[in-house]
Amino acid sequence: MISDRPIFLPQGFKFSAASAGMKASGKPDLGLILAEPGTSAAALFTRNRIVAAPLIVGRAALSKAGGRLRAVIVNSGNANCATGPAGVRACRAVCAAIAKPLKVSAAEVFPSSTGIIGVPLPAEKIGQNLGILISSAEATVERLRQFAEAILTTDSRPKLDSIPLRSGKGAITGIAKGAGMIHPQVATMLVYLLTDIVATPGELSSALRKACDHSFNLISIDGDTSTNDTVLILASGQSRTKLRAVRAEFEHALIELCRSLAEQIVRDGEGVEHLIRLKVEQARNRAEALEVARTISGSLLVKTSWAGADPNWGRILAAIGRSGVPIDPAKIAIWIGDQKVCRGSTVCPFDHRRAHADLAKAECRIAVRLGRGKASVEFLTTDLTTDYVKINAEYST
Amino acid sequence: MISDRPIFLPQGFKFSAASAGMKASGKPDLGLILAEPGTSAAALFTRNRIVAAPLIVGRAALSKAGGRLRAVIVNSGNANCATGPAGVRACRAVCAAIAKPLKVSAAEVFPSSTGIIGVPLPAEKIGQNLGILISSAEATVERLRQFAEAILTTDSRPKLDSIPLRSGKGAITGIAKGAGMIHPQVATMLVYLLTDIVATPGELSSALRKACDHSFNLISIDGDTSTNDTVLILASGQSRTKLRAVRAEFEHALIELCRSLAEQIVRDGEGVEHLIRLKVEQARNRAEALEVARTISGSLLVKTSWAGADPNWGRILAAIGRSGVPIDPAKIAIWIGDQKVCRGSTVCPFDHRRAHADLAKAECRIAVRLGRGKASVEFLTTDLTTDYVKINAEYST
Repeated sequence: MISDRPIFLPQGFKFSAASAGMKASGKPDLGLILAEPGTSAAALFTRNRIVAAPLIVGRAALSKAGGRLRAVIVNSGNANCATGPAGVRACRAVCAAIAKPLKVSAAEVFPSSTGIIGVPLPAEKIGQNLGILISSAEATVERLRQFAEAILTTDSRPKLDSIPLRSGKGAITGIAKGAGMIHPQVATMLVYLLTDIVATPGELSSALRKACDHSFNLISIDGDTSTNDTVLILASGQSRTKLRAVRAEFEHALIELCRSLAEQIVRDGEGVEHLIRLKVEQARNRAEALEVARTISGSLLVKTSWAGADPNWGRILAAIGRSGVPIDPAKIAIWIGDQKVCRGSTVCPFDHRRAHADLAKAECRIAVRLGRGKASVEFLTTDLTTDYVKINAEYST
Repeated sequence: MISDRPIFLPQGFKFSAASAGMKASGKPDLGLILAEPGTSAAALFTRNRIVAAPLIVGRAALSKAGGRLRAVIVNSGNANCATGPAGVRACRAVCAAIAKPLKVSAAEVFPSSTGIIGVPLPAEKIGQNLGILISSAEATVERLRQFAEAILTTDSRPKLDSIPLRSGKGAITGIAKGAGMIHPQVATMLVYLLTDIVATPGELSSALRKACDHSFNLISIDGDTSTNDTVLILASGQSRTKLRAVRAEFEHALIELCRSLAEQIVRDGEGVEHLIRLKVEQARNRAEALEVARTISGSLLVKTSWAGADPNWGRILAAIGRSGVPIDPAKIAIWIGDQKVCRGSTVCPFDHRRAHADLAKAECRIAVRLGRGKASVEFLTTDLTTDYVKINAEYST
């Protein structure tokens, strides 16, 4: 799914990045997108009940501005979460400071933050960099890539992809970040989707919800749903192609783009050595298939067995059994690679060495059949390695 | 809670252990308890829908024999789970082979297994050792300790405790095993509780359910509920003290004993370096408090921060937010050790060095207040270290 597709620059957007000193490394930690007048927007946010300040401010802004948007300001190195009313004020101050020189309403500036929870946002440091951020914004792929770099935290590489629309002019380009606290519900981490199609906020919102259900809501790295998950889509209208005229192609392209970004996030997961394509089949409905997929992909014993390329299907079976889905053990079957390893919850004769070799590859398919119905889901997840523990056990405060 | 209390030998029981070669180490892997005629019994089993053969056989046997029991046979090194009808037959064959020389019904022999899932039980190897197992059974503390050793798997030490009953003669003694796949629901791993009190199976069952709710159901090591969890209580009646005459003391002693064994299991958790006493307070009801405690103790990000003694309370807050309990962020407070670190979901000024030092101890208290009601729960859990991953990532098949 990951391609070497060229990155298209959708018309109507400029990008820039700067360093405000929030990252200990001194790397860029501020990113800006400027959008032309008439740009419409829609967003989805985390379902976590603890919600970061920029999500509170951004949700209200989108509503106040009727889904119109002129700028997106993102900082990394600080999540501005659990920072109380002061965090909301700091976020609003940053938006206002961008709105003023642009001569737009503060509600047309959409904020995002990612990084450590519970540390006050250094709004002054950010403020000192806004002038250069605005003046250096350009409509080039180079600047777009700089933006994608500036929003990273523990990610090892930027996550980008583009899909051109054939039946009209224009394209959709997506930028994402995320490597830990990845277990999205409705939305995941920070994702920006840009298109030059003509669309209303309502049309964007409906397409976005579908696309997220088929991409970001089908991945998990560590089972922890973030407080800052945000997926934002912007449509500049500059291609003059109307979304309603090419709806099927647009929605298909948006799903493909989101799946590409979701896969890039999983591949860059903290400490990940093995990517697992987990298919849950024959569930009564999609929700049931997802519940089983999430339980398997959240099991420490399953994830550590994958780290060791151990075809220990008994741990997968035990996870299915505690998923809450009223399965019948006699109907459960499990495949590792192309070998059936368990039928009727009982061991099948299989080639252990081949199963080990399949799991030892960078990517392996695992399938589970529940024998309850016709619904299925393909979930992307990862192993759990000692590196994940090391990355997250470091004394960070 | 862990004491150096002496181990009492409850009257009416004999013990033995043997090696049948199921453990690669060659260590003892068979344990036997013989009980005098008139012994009553009750058991609780895992809520996992995938259930090992010995649980299927044991549950039916207890029912068939009307809660009367004469022997308990336990093997380690093989879970006899996901082994299909052949696994059930193998289990029944072992029970029958013990019943015959003892001249009791096979339904009076209770089986348990623990170890790898999906490998056929070597019933012949076990059978060859039953003669010596029966003939060497003795009513001594030394043999009881040998039994406790024989049922271990990844455990580093046996888990035992005893409580004498003051208001009558007699005592309760407990033996447990378990170090991984510990996230019990209703029962946990293998636990044997022996008393010489006079009690009906119904009286035992009611006391056992209460005791489990206050002990094994309040711990988690890795979030994975086992397929083999079994807690069995046996009462020989030899002390002539009736349970109904000392009910309050008996139930209290049983809870204390189960809490001691539960804590021993958590302390011996795979790779565990830090034990966390997690108190969830001000929940609307106990189920809600448990849900929050289980979500926090199941979060990889929280558990890895504990491994690093990192007072990263933001991760605890994020876990509370995704627990499913409809919390109000404005009412959440968090303590690490005796310091409040978060109030109204917002950072409090606190001494980071002291919080780090508190978490660096072998044991630390963490408290969470939800501001929703008066229910609370104290949960025992652990950190997640690179050693846990190493133990479970080893290529074991």
